[in-house]
Amino acid sequence: MKIIVQKFGGSSLSTQEKRLQAANKVIAAKKDGYAIVVVVSAMGRTGDPYATDTLINLVKNINRDINPRELDLLLNCGEIISAVVFCQVISNLGYEAIVLTGAQAGIITDNSFTEARILKVNPEKVFKNLKDNKIVIVAGFQGITHDGELTTLGRGGSDTTAAALGVALDAQFVEIFTDVDGIKTADPRIVKDAKTLDVVTYNEICHLAHQGAKVIHPRAVEIAMQKNIPLRVRSTFNDAPGTLVTNHSDMQNSVEISSDRLITGIAHVPRITQLKIPTKNYKDIKGLELKIFRSMALSNISIDFINVHPDQVIFTVRDDDAEKAEQIINNLGLEVEVLPGCAKVSAVGANMAGVPGVMAKIVEALTEENIQILQTADSHTTIWCLVKKEDMEKAVIALHRKFNLS
Amino acid sequence: MKIIVQKFGGSSLSTQEKRLQAANKVIAAKKDGYAIVVVVSAMGRTGDPYATDTLINLVKNINRDINPRELDLLLNCGEIISAVVFCQVISNLGYEAIVLTGAQAGIITDNSFTEARILKVNPEKVFKNLKDNKIVIVAGFQGITHDGELTTLGRGGSDTTAAALGVALDAQFVEIFTDVDGIKTADPRIVKDAKTLDVVTYNEICHLAHQGAKVIHPRAVEIAMQKNIPLRVRSTFNDAPGTLVTNHSDMQNSVEISSDRLITGIAHVPRITQLKIPTKNYKDIKGLELKIFRSMALSNISIDFINVHPDQVIFTVRDDDAEKAEQIINNLGLEVEVLPGCAKVSAVGANMAGVPGVMAKIVEALTEENIQILQTADSHTTIWCLVKKEDMEKAVIALHRKFNLS
Repeated sequence: MKIIVQKFGGSSLSTQEKRLQAANKVIAAKKDGYAIVVVVSAMGRTGDPYATDTLINLVKNINRDINPRELDLLLNCGEIISAVVFCQVISNLGYEAIVLTGAQAGIITDNSFTEARILKVNPEKVFKNLKDNKIVIVAGFQGITHDGELTTLGRGGSDTTAAALGVALDAQFVEIFTDVDGIKTADPRIVKDAKTLDVVTYNEICHLAHQGAKVIHPRAVEIAMQKNIPLRVRSTFNDAPGTLVTNHSDMQNSVEISSDRLITGIAHVPRITQLKIPTKNYKDIKGLELKIFRSMALSNISIDFINVHPDQVIFTVRDDDAEKAEQIINNLGLEVEVLPGCAKVSAVGANMAGVPGVMAKIVEALTEENIQILQTADSHTTIWCLVKKEDMEKAVIALHRKFNLS
Repeated sequence: MKIIVQKFGGSSLSTQEKRLQAANKVIAAKKDGYAIVVVVSAMGRTGDPYATDTLINLVKNINRDINPRELDLLLNCGEIISAVVFCQVISNLGYEAIVLTGAQAGIITDNSFTEARILKVNPEKVFKNLKDNKIVIVAGFQGITHDGELTTLGRGGSDTTAAALGVALDAQFVEIFTDVDGIKTADPRIVKDAKTLDVVTYNEICHLAHQGAKVIHPRAVEIAMQKNIPLRVRSTFNDAPGTLVTNHSDMQNSVEISSDRLITGIAHVPRITQLKIPTKNYKDIKGLELKIFRSMALSNISIDFINVHPDQVIFTVRDDDAEKAEQIINNLGLEVEVLPGCAKVSAVGANMAGVPGVMAKIVEALTEENIQILQTADSHTTIWCLVKKEDMEKAVIALHRKFNLS
């Protein structure tokens, strides 16, 4: 039995017409002789009655501080409703299908409500139904703990469900269907001639996703990578082959030898605030730094772009967290210089490690456009630049052009 | 620990204002020192996005023949959403509450999807949370099978959940909150001076409910009766004491000695079709009758008011099933006389058995009003009359008056 897992996001399921197009993708794969597991997200976006954000608003309008446990119970319904609706579309086309909740599909998680991690997958029920020649439709984004609590996997969780099922079922590949043609070298709303990548490595896509490319959730990529299950990111609404995500050695054997590609793509994250804390007037600087980072962690504020210098500590937070972060630092008796309205622009490439001149090219590209670099950081796969938000689009376009990605 | 189970129907939960009134009933009982289990139905009626009928329409518009298993998965969401919303109302008023799905509350059912029967209740999780001083909010109308399938209990299923939990928890009593003041001697929309009954026996209410009084589901009454858990039917929207449902011996000791009450109430069921099949030209009449009843059962048509005579078979079906029933009879090669637009009017009273003259009084009441009696039937607790639908209201009023129920 050759198995494919196909995941459809909310934007592919928001109307009956779109659901029909999605169903055609399922049936085409079924006709090709595959056993099919479909993973669905909740239908549509805010405003649609059964979308995740609508359900959140329904209860947050009553009680802003809803318990994460009850929030997860509620959000479980969004994907179940979506799965039952999609099942009817498939049935109506004459194919036998069955819906399984995350719990029924054997998705066992820890009890970190709203951000649960999959501990293991017990795929027996999925297998049994596939053997009965049924299309198995699984409610994505959800799981169950060992003691019967219902959980959700956090944003992008349906990708994670699909990847975990792909691994557990030893699937041929996992298809992530979305409303774009695949993974692009940059956001096509910014870079008009951004190219769809034919093949990328798990590492490249993972870094791109972490840096703001929203097509696939990085946790899903990490899971698929462990067992080397290929992912394919493609559009629900056309027949383009999309982007194959695989490992490096598979790429060497593929038609398109892209291992000498220096930069895979340009990603960006808007709405970032930079915080600068002068520390030179303090004796116990190490103790102070520890205090700052601990306070942020305790308040559940995610910090990034951390540059610790002898006389100052610089880091960034999301704009939404900026006010709270400033308050915390002031409560520690410290001054802080706050620069809101920044954006992070990243050049991602698995093969840039050890290649000289990459940073030089980036600085060159940005300087040519008179873009001020507020801060930089780098790893062996990514170089990040913090710029002002009004420079973000210009920066993405300049970097895309400098590395000949079109 | 003294436990009360409180059940709120969809019409008590349809708006935030109504949910607040319901929450006040919960908190009042909590302040009286009780441990509280709340059972909720889905919110509102058709048109409300999370009501049962709306969810049914959502999928039946795509596939009329939805699998009952998937329908139940979908309908489970209605009560879960309602429970999470109501939990926020309670939390917002400063009381600690937790939501349990039917499965989490230990409601174990058989696998008769859409009409599942409760096999047992494992109340450990409910008990544990009550001991932690939490208000436990249970999604009504739903359960789980031994092999993890989600089921629903059929119409009125939240009453059944409440009664089953009341029995399993050995509750002091079960309160059924609704939008009327209690159980009436007749439908107040028909009989203006219908009285709210203070006390009725399980048997009386059970027969009234089976005969069309919609305030409480008969299965719930049967379950409560087994362990003699008192039920109280009362309004969410005022402080009237409502109707206490208990057993006969408890009633003897109650202030209101009503055991010599002949008739408890007048019930009615509209939209009934009478079918008359002449059989005198057939040799094997017994075989024929068997064929008729078996065919109806196989087609899942519920038949009622069955009068078998040497020369004809008479019975009734719901108007919705009439066309199908006629077809089936014709397919057996039989003639049938179809009389649509009938209604069943019933006088219910646990103490009418062996009392002479009850039927005489009924005939008298209807004849005085020139109402044609199309058919009658009787048991030791109920006398039914079939009348034309245009006579139904007049018949209910006449019987109500004749037995001095006002």
